[in-house]
Amino acid sequence: MAPAVVNIADKLSVFADHWNPRIVGGYNGNELRLAKVQGDFTWHAHADTDELFLVVKGELGIEFRDGVRTIRVGEMIVVPKGTEHRPFAAEEAHILLIDREGEPNTGVNPSAMTRTTLEVL
Amino acid sequence: MAPAVVNIADKLSVFADHWNPRIVGGYNGNELRLAKVQGDFTWHAHADTDELFLVVKGELGIEFRDGVRTIRVGEMIVVPKGTEHRPFAAEEAHILLIDREGEPNTGVNPSAMTRTTLEVL
Repeated sequence: MAPAVVNIADKLSVFADHWNPRIVGGYNGNELRLAKVQGDFTWHAHADTDELFLVVKGELGIEFRDGVRTIRVGEMIVVPKGTEHRPFAAEEAHILLIDREGEPNTGVNPSAMTRTTLEVL
Repeated sequence: MAPAVVNIADKLSVFADHWNPRIVGGYNGNELRLAKVQGDFTWHAHADTDELFLVVKGELGIEFRDGVRTIRVGEMIVVPKGTEHRPFAAEEAHILLIDREGEPNTGVNPSAMTRTTLEVL
């Protein structure tokens, strides 16, 4: 069967809350997630998975222990497993994330922002 | 160390040939690849890896045994492992692909379009 085409903007249009990724597909045991983000996330690391961020709207900041990276529309970054990081966004940004299946959004550092069960769109 | 930000348009600007993906990063044992495509690719399947396509310019067609999908800018599709497919593009399109490390672009079906060693940008 021909697989489905995922329109990123259409999927983003059905939710509005921040820091609550939705699952929109899978790839080799990883989840394709879409999120709207604004404000500050909490410091965390993922023990067993890299994490990919691709920005589709706005501007995403990620603080690392040795500096800050800014990811703009049409840019992406891969945070290697085990690397502490803290995402933030002054204005609302929309992002595509890829994480290993079931990986909590806060990795090994639970916080008030942890989402344990993600909605599948 | 803070990881590098990958600007997709910048990476695409340094090459012009078609159906010859460049590697621009890695994620959990998979390669992030960028390609410019135009014309017809050959039928093939990947035995052991899904394949993700995200279109950043133009329009990509993928023929499957039971029909055609059209993937436009801001859309993506994941071709499951083992699924025969044939990409094509009437006009030049630019795409982000994700494949397992080392996977030939023609999978288990070598053709004149096979690229065995991909350049790393």
